[in-house]
Amino acid sequence: MSATKTAKKNDDSSATGNEGTKPNIAFIGLGNMGAPMAENLLKAGYTLSVFDLSDAATQRLQQAGARVADSPKAAAADAQVVISMLPAGKHVHSVYLGKDGSDAADGAATSGLLSDLPKGTLVIDSSTIAAEDARVVADAATKLGVDFLDAPVSGGTGGAIAGSLTFIVGGSAEAFAKAEPILAIMGKNVFHAGDHGAGQVAKICNNMLLGILMAGTAEAISLGVKNGLDPKVLSDIMLQSSGRNWTLEVYNPYPQVMDNVPSSNGYQGGFMSKLMQKDLNLAMKNAQDTEVDTPMGAKAAELYNEHAVEYGDKDFSSIMARHDRSVLPT
Amino acid sequence: MSATKTAKKNDDSSATGNEGTKPNIAFIGLGNMGAPMAENLLKAGYTLSVFDLSDAATQRLQQAGARVADSPKAAAADAQVVISMLPAGKHVHSVYLGKDGSDAADGAATSGLLSDLPKGTLVIDSSTIAAEDARVVADAATKLGVDFLDAPVSGGTGGAIAGSLTFIVGGSAEAFAKAEPILAIMGKNVFHAGDHGAGQVAKICNNMLLGILMAGTAEAISLGVKNGLDPKVLSDIMLQSSGRNWTLEVYNPYPQVMDNVPSSNGYQGGFMSKLMQKDLNLAMKNAQDTEVDTPMGAKAAELYNEHAVEYGDKDFSSIMARHDRSVLPT
Repeated sequence: MSATKTAKKNDDSSATGNEGTKPNIAFIGLGNMGAPMAENLLKAGYTLSVFDLSDAATQRLQQAGARVADSPKAAAADAQVVISMLPAGKHVHSVYLGKDGSDAADGAATSGLLSDLPKGTLVIDSSTIAAEDARVVADAATKLGVDFLDAPVSGGTGGAIAGSLTFIVGGSAEAFAKAEPILAIMGKNVFHAGDHGAGQVAKICNNMLLGILMAGTAEAISLGVKNGLDPKVLSDIMLQSSGRNWTLEVYNPYPQVMDNVPSSNGYQGGFMSKLMQKDLNLAMKNAQDTEVDTPMGAKAAELYNEHAVEYGDKDFSSIMARHDRSVLPT
Repeated sequence: MSATKTAKKNDDSSATGNEGTKPNIAFIGLGNMGAPMAENLLKAGYTLSVFDLSDAATQRLQQAGARVADSPKAAAADAQVVISMLPAGKHVHSVYLGKDGSDAADGAATSGLLSDLPKGTLVIDSSTIAAEDARVVADAATKLGVDFLDAPVSGGTGGAIAGSLTFIVGGSAEAFAKAEPILAIMGKNVFHAGDHGAGQVAKICNNMLLGILMAGTAEAISLGVKNGLDPKVLSDIMLQSSGRNWTLEVYNPYPQVMDNVPSSNGYQGGFMSKLMQKDLNLAMKNAQDTEVDTPMGAKAAELYNEHAVEYGDKDFSSIMARHDRSVLPT
């Protein structure tokens, strides 16, 4: 078995619901990620009802052609598909299961959105939350005949705007097949990782590994530079040797080795250290719960917890500054 | 500045010494790596004098067409180029500086081979040793008018046999230019990393990073598998995402995800855990000497020091067994 991957389709006609018509979509959560994702669906011709607590956020989407609703339930009233992009597990539970979402651990939805949705509604939650939190909502949805997918993304705000996100999806093959054409509008790659929660698990595995790669690459370059090597020469050698990894390919943490990366721009933009910190801590929580020993991940989490205190808003490649403060802009 | 890389040349005529004639080569150290390297030089038409303490090793090379000498000095008597492939820094010091090589820290060669070599001789040491040990020999050589290059390799015994090694070279540009056609016979990639010692530094930086990648990838896969994910599906997703690295590309540590890798063959062959341990400890020694903080490298070194006690002769991807003993053959 290998990962199901969908390349971005430019043919909008593939992004259809049942019988060739586009489903109505409710979009909940219009932050830095959610807003551009929703805009891309509007551009592709979908009918959207949107909800967010921020008026500024909903006004932006109204101007782009969305109907603004005053609650998640109102947004979903006429929708066959619900998409959410929320900051953390507690928000996801609150929206779908109601304020006392914690009571729903037995699978029964209480006062949340789920209990109002018609059977057969497809719910796609793209928030990055704990796999266990996703499974609780998925179980409640399944009991109500609602299809739930956890579908966290990678690619950051740049990817959300460009429609080039990667979606890593957990849930049934049938629900995945329904979601695929819609996700392909917002993303370049769409992976089916496995059953409920598998999207969240695969994302934290990947991002834990990314944190390890970045911290490790930064210290390998640092060791070479302290020994008199040119950072670009050393990076080139490792890139063509067994040290090769994504950070050396497209995201070198040392300033001026690559153009158009955060390290060559004062570590602005990109993927903030505090978000890497969040993902590493989600991975550590999961590792603890499932009793998996992750010493490399734990060390990376320790480094980013420390680093984010001062540099939480800088790109995560700024972990390079741990070794050499002079890489930071003055 | 970027790394100088030489792709393997199939045109033997390029592998020439001065004025288009092939130099005579003395080859010292005919172990698992040195013997096939020397054989590839013989096949390319070089005249070789060889030395090793083992009679079995020298007999093998004699059959392949080499002249066998009874000492390093005798091997080098008529050579314009000396190549050595020895187990550790103490052997390199002993051969080049003499038995009390430690006295040569002031740069004066004592009773070793260096003091017998004519000015202009090119010495290429392909042993993996501490950068500082290489610099001591290089300094002594320079004072005697001998060109010294540290040129450690990666690619293992398979690469040595196939002539597809990677050479990472430290020393002057002039000496590098002289060595390049000879190294291109034994290797696929030849990098000039910088001045004396830079080859050793770049190699330990790369191999430290490789140890981090392997240990990190093993635990990321382990975390996914414990959460119910298929190791191949998860590997595919990470390979196409920001967790991508050399181990996922060509050397997956989980059994049966890839064909023709040690993990699918009981972790036999490949690059032994005890050799990764050696390289990580060389990196840690250097980091300590140069006061570079390498927490990820230190954690990887700790894991391989522990792992090599029981699995030193298994391939280094067997670090996977730390998480799941069932991956090992019974």
